[in-house]
Amino acid sequence: MKNKKKLAKMEPIKLKNVIINDLFWNPWKNLVKESIIPYQWDALNDRIEGAEPSRTITNFEIAAGRKEGQHYGMVFQDSDLYKWMETVAFSLATEKDEEWEKVFDDVVALIEDAQEKDGYLNTYFSVNYPDQKWTNLKNDHELYCAGHLIEAAVAYYEATSKTQILGVVSKLVDHIRTVLGDKEGQKRGYPGHPEIELALMKLYKATNEAKYIDLCQFFIEERGRRNPVHYYDVELEERGGARRSDNRDYDYYQAHLPVREQQTAEGHAVRATYLYSGMVDLANELEDEELLTVCRTLWENTVNKRMYVTGGIGSSAHEERFTVDYDLPNDRAYTETCAAIALVMWAHRMVQIEANNEYTDVLEKALYNGALSGISLDGKGYFYVNPLEVWPHTANFRHDMRTVKPTRQQWFGCACCPPNIARLLASLGQYIYSVNESEVYVHLFIGGETSFIANDQQVALSQESNYPWDGNVKISLALEIPTIFTVATRIPGWCRHADIFVNGMKKDVPIENGYAKITEQWSDGDTIELLFDMPVEIIRSHPEVRENAGKVALQRGPIIYCLEEQDNGANLQDLSIHTNQTFKVKYEENLLNGVTIIEGKASQTDRKKIEDILYTTKTYPEVERDFKAIPYYAWSNRGENEMTVWIRER
Amino acid sequence: MKNKKKLAKMEPIKLKNVIINDLFWNPWKNLVKESIIPYQWDALNDRIEGAEPSRTITNFEIAAGRKEGQHYGMVFQDSDLYKWMETVAFSLATEKDEEWEKVFDDVVALIEDAQEKDGYLNTYFSVNYPDQKWTNLKNDHELYCAGHLIEAAVAYYEATSKTQILGVVSKLVDHIRTVLGDKEGQKRGYPGHPEIELALMKLYKATNEAKYIDLCQFFIEERGRRNPVHYYDVELEERGGARRSDNRDYDYYQAHLPVREQQTAEGHAVRATYLYSGMVDLANELEDEELLTVCRTLWENTVNKRMYVTGGIGSSAHEERFTVDYDLPNDRAYTETCAAIALVMWAHRMVQIEANNEYTDVLEKALYNGALSGISLDGKGYFYVNPLEVWPHTANFRHDMRTVKPTRQQWFGCACCPPNIARLLASLGQYIYSVNESEVYVHLFIGGETSFIANDQQVALSQESNYPWDGNVKISLALEIPTIFTVATRIPGWCRHADIFVNGMKKDVPIENGYAKITEQWSDGDTIELLFDMPVEIIRSHPEVRENAGKVALQRGPIIYCLEEQDNGANLQDLSIHTNQTFKVKYEENLLNGVTIIEGKASQTDRKKIEDILYTTKTYPEVERDFKAIPYYAWSNRGENEMTVWIRER
Repeated sequence: MKNKKKLAKMEPIKLKNVIINDLFWNPWKNLVKESIIPYQWDALNDRIEGAEPSRTITNFEIAAGRKEGQHYGMVFQDSDLYKWMETVAFSLATEKDEEWEKVFDDVVALIEDAQEKDGYLNTYFSVNYPDQKWTNLKNDHELYCAGHLIEAAVAYYEATSKTQILGVVSKLVDHIRTVLGDKEGQKRGYPGHPEIELALMKLYKATNEAKYIDLCQFFIEERGRRNPVHYYDVELEERGGARRSDNRDYDYYQAHLPVREQQTAEGHAVRATYLYSGMVDLANELEDEELLTVCRTLWENTVNKRMYVTGGIGSSAHEERFTVDYDLPNDRAYTETCAAIALVMWAHRMVQIEANNEYTDVLEKALYNGALSGISLDGKGYFYVNPLEVWPHTANFRHDMRTVKPTRQQWFGCACCPPNIARLLASLGQYIYSVNESEVYVHLFIGGETSFIANDQQVALSQESNYPWDGNVKISLALEIPTIFTVATRIPGWCRHADIFVNGMKKDVPIENGYAKITEQWSDGDTIELLFDMPVEIIRSHPEVRENAGKVALQRGPIIYCLEEQDNGANLQDLSIHTNQTFKVKYEENLLNGVTIIEGKASQTDRKKIEDILYTTKTYPEVERDFKAIPYYAWSNRGENEMTVWIRER
Repeated sequence: MKNKKKLAKMEPIKLKNVIINDLFWNPWKNLVKESIIPYQWDALNDRIEGAEPSRTITNFEIAAGRKEGQHYGMVFQDSDLYKWMETVAFSLATEKDEEWEKVFDDVVALIEDAQEKDGYLNTYFSVNYPDQKWTNLKNDHELYCAGHLIEAAVAYYEATSKTQILGVVSKLVDHIRTVLGDKEGQKRGYPGHPEIELALMKLYKATNEAKYIDLCQFFIEERGRRNPVHYYDVELEERGGARRSDNRDYDYYQAHLPVREQQTAEGHAVRATYLYSGMVDLANELEDEELLTVCRTLWENTVNKRMYVTGGIGSSAHEERFTVDYDLPNDRAYTETCAAIALVMWAHRMVQIEANNEYTDVLEKALYNGALSGISLDGKGYFYVNPLEVWPHTANFRHDMRTVKPTRQQWFGCACCPPNIARLLASLGQYIYSVNESEVYVHLFIGGETSFIANDQQVALSQESNYPWDGNVKISLALEIPTIFTVATRIPGWCRHADIFVNGMKKDVPIENGYAKITEQWSDGDTIELLFDMPVEIIRSHPEVRENAGKVALQRGPIIYCLEEQDNGANLQDLSIHTNQTFKVKYEENLLNGVTIIEGKASQTDRKKIEDILYTTKTYPEVERDFKAIPYYAWSNRGENEMTVWIRER
């Protein structure tokens, strides 16, 4: 590997340099610190009464020789701890907390003890199946767990500058490098669940050690190759056939083709999007335009053919996967919370390279809708699956809808999405700004402060707004010496008209790929005001999305709306709206922690005229009625009820 | 049991007294005789190259001691032979065929040899599991197989007056009566798959032996009772727990409640409808008004809450079952061919008691649509599942649509629906007419001849029409002595205006419950002409059927129409129609064996204006285009393509 100049036009401002202070996000931020981190720590230690056992800490204690016993849980159980650690680390990056830091350090010591002498680290295999290490890369998640540990390690190092945990991961990765690779005697294997690729790129950036890029590159390039036999067939053969029910459809693992030949987003949506994120990172560091083109092609296929209007991806519950273009059923959407989060991560990487609001628009869409819908307002209920239409009566009965839960589930049924949304919320700061030598990019409109160096001048930037409920954003700058640099602020794709004021004066600013580039000699106290028009928008789908034919969705700013039975009565499908009406928009402080709602007129069959027969040659008369739409992310906080995002258009 | 007066107001004219000679049905009738009966006989004998083995005849040969070996196939494999026998018997009823009669008699001898000394008859258990007889009534289909044998036996007896096969069933039923019953030492069990109930009622009618009603009554009354323990729990306990994966949801078996307490159609749709048919028969013979009321309640729930517009029932592939009211997804309809056939059977029994066209309308709907769609025009392809909307691209990929086959399957993958539709087609004659002392009922408009006795006078009746392609039906009578009686002809529910001519003179006739009662002193050569208006009708669903909101179906006469990609291009969901247009109706002789099509104007997004993005705030312009609808039953005869019954309304 040659360490070249990067492709990226900017770098994210790091988490520890961003303080969030925002009406919309503060409650979520507080949830993480006050509720989610302690709750999950108790869960990992099996101190939650009535919850399914986790045994995660116990597993490590057994592996560390501190306790006797067998491993309990999934092959990827270790990653529950690692994801929690990453959340804690993110939280410590912006707010010191000695107690949690102490807990974290104790955990690091425990992990160190659980690590084998040769660097191997995975309690499932160390304790129960030491002879089966690295024999089933396709399904066994050893590299997946390693990836999450690496991410946690880097986050903790960046938050605290402590290096002990980096020692653990360095030893682990060196071990992996002896086992896997393209040299004589090594296995040419790569993870069935991508994750370590993007983690290795983080580790490289934290340590500047090229060997981590090399390993990432090996995993990515080897994927889906036939040498001449596919590695997953090789290892299947070596272990003497299937050890458990073996999935031979390698598109599920994004291993159906070498990655450079892939053109469509296939398989398990989270695996896919983690992989693509790692590919962007690698393309960036290696200045590999060809690989970047692959990422762009996959991106276009994803967002233009296979993404819900909420930013949810993965439309099939079976295999939690992408299916085919335009197959986006609303009532059987899978749209795993984790997949929306992974889409945020992927978009964030793309925009650093291309500085185009097409990426940040999707990032924002997934963040405010498809990801946030995964957690209840009180942080105690979760959705793994985020359908766009729910009919409890039917969903509770039909087998083909059994993954759709009409109400949120408690924390710890399975531990995949909840910690993932926790680490998203805890790391939100890193998605807001990017910088390069002479530009600061404002991607998201989230109140708070940051600081950076522009043209050698230290600058403090603060952002204030009532976003997403209105489109007025104020940015203030503080700096000692007046300096020329560019504030490149995103003009959201949903916004048809934006005015920009600099120090109170309206200003015409060039817009490049959806970013307004305001280049000034900035002085201390300068302000930028952004006024985004934020009317209710009527959204329609591509005509090939058959589930949405004749239907519209309501959007205002980045927020996708839905109808809930609670506000509109049952049988939401019977309700239709005229789209040429003027909608009422109203902030309701006491509703759902404070939300802006949309009200208007709808039509519905006159209930009194309906006959008790299924089919008729009559046209039932309709009556006019009011409707009320709430933000999609806030649905299912008032008990089990019907919900729909797509509404019939009259 | 006391043999009372029956509830029924009429009795069907028997198959052997009805000759079908009809433009629409002749090709189907010929298919049965010329293609299906010989093909299936070869299949039962494993003489079809490339087909999955059946081994049905071999199983009997082994049980009969004529061959060595083990039983092969399903626990209900024997019923494949019995259903085929019933088809042959129906066919022989109207057309003598010495060769097939010889084959049939040889089969009877084989079955006789396979029957055990005590009367037991089931090759699966006799050969492989003699110690497990009658230990799992819930799942083991011994009574189901017995039921199909009884039906075949009665049909053959009625066709040929031969009694040898009645001897076999008599011995079998006597054996069953020793094992099952409410006396000391007997098992209080009843079949997990109802079927024998209606068969026993047929056997009773053929033999006039009350013991068969008694057994039927026992099975029906015992069903779902707790004595105090549910029988399926009793037998589960007795056999020491689950022998295979045990379904404890007894609604699947219609055994969740005693039948008299059941109010909604639940569980496996074929089981349910066979049971309800047997219940009607029993209620009728016992003049049991209470039981009849249960049947009526179940009927109303079925047809007014849980039936597709095609007469298909059972909206869930999982467990092939009814789900909840108004849950009728079109693209994941299960609507097994057998269930539509069973609905025909149930409706036929109801109308004998109630003389109301609400039953015959459903019978006709299921016959011309949901049942007939199960077989291809050449008789070589079959659907078990009859969806109302098919998107091959998606259905071939999505796991939750995996039972939906976008093209018809060849004969013998599993052998349940093909023989069932064969026996329906072969027995069609029995559904057309009913009689009582002074009335003849014309339920269906199918050309041909029949004869009956009305007020002691032998009458021959012939029917001519081009139905269902037009609504003109001519009925002619032949009788020696002018006699007063009533011709009660159905006025179909789909018909808004009908004219009736007697001997060419228009006549006002009283309509009672959808039957025009023409009472005359009839003479030889008298004619009745029925002129049913048959315009294209726009059908809408009850507003709670969410899948059909904003959509219409097209119907003309009894025929439900659909759009196929073959005629209309792909993306049928993007097509919408104005319902206030005048549709064109045209008979196309060379299309799909001759069908009447519907043509009209539709709107569709202007393909040239569509952008390659998923979501937009634009309204894409639409263009006007023609559409062409074909009868639903005839879809999927021109290769894999999209299809939809429900069309968006503009």
